[in-house]
Amino acid sequence: MRDHFEIRDHDAAGRIGRLEVPRADVTVETPALLPVVNPNVLTVEPERLRTEFGAEMLITNSYIIRSTDRIRDRVLSEGLHDFLDFDGAIMTDSGSFQLAEYGDIDVTTAEILEFQRRIGSDVATPVDVPTPPDVDRDRAERELETTERALADAEAAETGEMLVNAPVQGSKYPDLREAAGRHAAGTDLDVFPVGAMVPLMNAYRYADVVEAVMAAKRGLDPDCPVHLFGAGHPMMLALAVAMGCDLFDSAAYALMARDGRYLTVSGTEHLEEMSYFPCSCPVCADHTPADLREGDDDRAERLLAEHNLHVTFEEIRRIKAAIRDGTLLELVDRRARGHPAMLDGYRALLDHADQLEATDPVSKDAFFYTSHEAARRPEVGRHHDRLAWLETPDDLLLTESKPPSSHDHDAVWRVKPPFGPFPRALSETYPLTAEVPERVDAAAQTAAAEGVRRLVEANPETAITLGHDGWAETALDRVPDRVAVDDLRDLGR
Amino acid sequence: MRDHFEIRDHDAAGRIGRLEVPRADVTVETPALLPVVNPNVLTVEPERLRTEFGAEMLITNSYIIRSTDRIRDRVLSEGLHDFLDFDGAIMTDSGSFQLAEYGDIDVTTAEILEFQRRIGSDVATPVDVPTPPDVDRDRAERELETTERALADAEAAETGEMLVNAPVQGSKYPDLREAAGRHAAGTDLDVFPVGAMVPLMNAYRYADVVEAVMAAKRGLDPDCPVHLFGAGHPMMLALAVAMGCDLFDSAAYALMARDGRYLTVSGTEHLEEMSYFPCSCPVCADHTPADLREGDDDRAERLLAEHNLHVTFEEIRRIKAAIRDGTLLELVDRRARGHPAMLDGYRALLDHADQLEATDPVSKDAFFYTSHEAARRPEVGRHHDRLAWLETPDDLLLTESKPPSSHDHDAVWRVKPPFGPFPRALSETYPLTAEVPERVDAAAQTAAAEGVRRLVEANPETAITLGHDGWAETALDRVPDRVAVDDLRDLGR
Ligand SMILES: [Mg+2]
Ligand SMILES: [Mg+2]
Ligand SMILES: [Zn+2]
Ligand SMILES: [Zn+2]
Repeated sequence: MRDHFEIRDHDAAGRIGRLEVPRADVTVETPALLPVVNPNVLTVEPERLRTEFGAEMLITNSYIIRSTDRIRDRVLSEGLHDFLDFDGAIMTDSGSFQLAEYGDIDVTTAEILEFQRRIGSDVATPVDVPTPPDVDRDRAERELETTERALADAEAAETGEMLVNAPVQGSKYPDLREAAGRHAAGTDLDVFPVGAMVPLMNAYRYADVVEAVMAAKRGLDPDCPVHLFGAGHPMMLALAVAMGCDLFDSAAYALMARDGRYLTVSGTEHLEEMSYFPCSCPVCADHTPADLREGDDDRAERLLAEHNLHVTFEEIRRIKAAIRDGTLLELVDRRARGHPAMLDGYRALLDHADQLEATDPVSKDAFFYTSHEAARRPEVGRHHDRLAWLETPDDLLLTESKPPSSHDHDAVWRVKPPFGPFPRALSETYPLTAEVPERVDAAAQTAAAEGVRRLVEANPETAITLGHDGWAETALDRVPDRVAVDDLRDLGR
Repeated sequence: MRDHFEIRDHDAAGRIGRLEVPRADVTVETPALLPVVNPNVLTVEPERLRTEFGAEMLITNSYIIRSTDRIRDRVLSEGLHDFLDFDGAIMTDSGSFQLAEYGDIDVTTAEILEFQRRIGSDVATPVDVPTPPDVDRDRAERELETTERALADAEAAETGEMLVNAPVQGSKYPDLREAAGRHAAGTDLDVFPVGAMVPLMNAYRYADVVEAVMAAKRGLDPDCPVHLFGAGHPMMLALAVAMGCDLFDSAAYALMARDGRYLTVSGTEHLEEMSYFPCSCPVCADHTPADLREGDDDRAERLLAEHNLHVTFEEIRRIKAAIRDGTLLELVDRRARGHPAMLDGYRALLDHADQLEATDPVSKDAFFYTSHEAARRPEVGRHHDRLAWLETPDDLLLTESKPPSSHDHDAVWRVKPPFGPFPRALSETYPLTAEVPERVDAAAQTAAAEGVRRLVEANPETAITLGHDGWAETALDRVPDRVAVDDLRDLGR
């Protein structure tokens, strides 16, 4: 039991939580975005990050501080919080990224943890090995062993109140990611970054990100706070939260701004090519793209960085609101339309609907059917599972329409795509109060047919008749042969 | 030819245009949102609407001014622009809404147009009859005749430089809407409101809205500026613009605020129930929902109205940016996930893909396949039409995979869902450069199979072989029997 992390609300595998950071004496609400602060270049002052943008935590790199003569002694003497002028929690990275980039760094886990403790870091990081996605299995296993030794070194270190990250690696081998998650959760370390995702995210391989994270989550305990390392683009945050990630870091806001790039929840725009700002943050409410292009480059970079932060924190608030309202998967559904690769990621997420189902609330406001993909949401599978346990009479009519005024059946149950059949007693319960489009699609019909199949198979003695409203062949193919099937359109109702 | 309206950019049936309003001596960029200003209650001062929110035009009600002793003489003597302190263009409504609500009003088209001219309106409205959606056909026809007489009266009136609205009615009878559009376009009036949509929009009947508007558009000329009367919720603006509507009015921003309601691009929230503001407009960047609830009610109402305006104008800018970028239908696709009824509206819109195709640009940046619905976008049908005209050799291999290293066919064409086959020469042209998810769906496969069918039917002499990558049965069913079909998965590629 990790008593520094408390989960308050759930939706799918997403959650709103409270992470206690004892060394900073603050509690951070998650999902949280940690702006990356380069100790050498403060694009936006840390204090403004807190007061204007609402950042409760930030992340900076202890390895860079340790390697930079100009600032090392100052940070050691003043401490990180005074050096950055930031009152919230500060996480520090260890140089693992530099290790991955340059193949070697001149510091051990014991040394860098000691340095992080001395500069006053609130959440420190050992020297793990961020194995890239497409390496062979031998290398992935070998490097994972090195990472696991780094976690052991971290457990052995004197860290006091400082929290310590336990990175989860394993390249793109799901079983290694899961084993790594299980191993990390078994340590007494505190925060769990899923690492080496940046190459996948840079290549828009969101389905691969989903497979890796869902595997790591299967190994981790539900109460482990999870950091999706390197994920800061607002386009993907809802998907990441729906998988159960709690912490994110954004270097993108500043790096993109330096390149004249403007973030949105559906992608990245180039200031050069923009005619309108699709945003009403204080920057975009007061300026046009032409304004920014006309001023000097530093001003444009600073204003773009501010916009990028606004849109990212806005998305974090939107995600929290969605978790509270039970609409997180509907938000993910919207975000999946930002790019075909996001749609791939969403489709991959729904391959793990069972894993989402475990923490999805049993009751919410109305389920909104907003896409073919929604037929695969965890609520649909949960209803199908329930169908196997419901009592049925000897002769049952299932109908998509109103019950006929006279009939010889023992009971009439309603059929509603994408859920399938249900007795009247359940009709006012979640998710059967769902709002669905009048133009029903084959995916919803096929899911409803699957519900019929589950009911039929669990009740071999029950005679079952199905009245459907013009279902597609693919849906009807799923209905067992022993069901008497009528198309209500032929019957003229 | 209506030379006061110039169309600059097209996407689907949406456009960016410039509406010259000579009496105000301004040119309004469309799509434009006209805030509704109640002459008795200025929730947000008109001058702020212009400077802070970017409103170039607003709408107020001449019938209310004429009926209100307290202000009538003042408006007559000062003129509407001074009375409201607004420099942009002002449209005035006529009392038709009051007619619809109360069954009778004490003014004729000639009288109200004369009054509108005297108070200095820039765009005036005759007294049409806003026939509700579900009336019988007789009533719809009868009331349409009355509306057409009102247009004749308006044509006969002395209006000088003032533009005049020609409302298009017809209830929910598409042929009446189309005839009404054709009649209105045949007058010398200037702006074309599609009327009586409010009951449909209030009931979330967006598919019915689409049928009515698309019918009216078939009757109107392409260069008619179209006003979707009563549409101001940001959720539906992208859909409305994609149909070819240019002007919108929002009373919602103020009315909703009075009820404590907060607009978003995917619906309406209640301030009482909100924990986070999913927005970074100046109001939401500076306040939390709790802040607003704690202050006095007038302050909360004013701040909510400001947020509601920000999010609405933001969406207008986003729509314009999407038209410029050729991504309007992708925006509509995202907005369709806000509510199942919006998805119905989007599906209804795609029933009219041919109508959208007429003005959709032939080339854009990459087509993004972002949903099953995207398989029905106009670009797909246009490619299918083109397939009937391409030259084919005697023996043609169509394959979803790379061409085999050796083969006996005369040529090898690529097959790409949702488009279908195409010769190599077209592979770098729009829309065949499309980004599609790796997890292909049956809708994309079925559309590709339709492309195969079109090619086969246009070339009865050509021997055709198809290599597909695990297509669904529904897709394969569409491939003509004479095509030799191989599943590349079985061949092991
Ligand atoms: Mg500890
Ligand atoms: Mg005129
Ligand atoms: Zn902005
Ligand atoms: Zn706002």
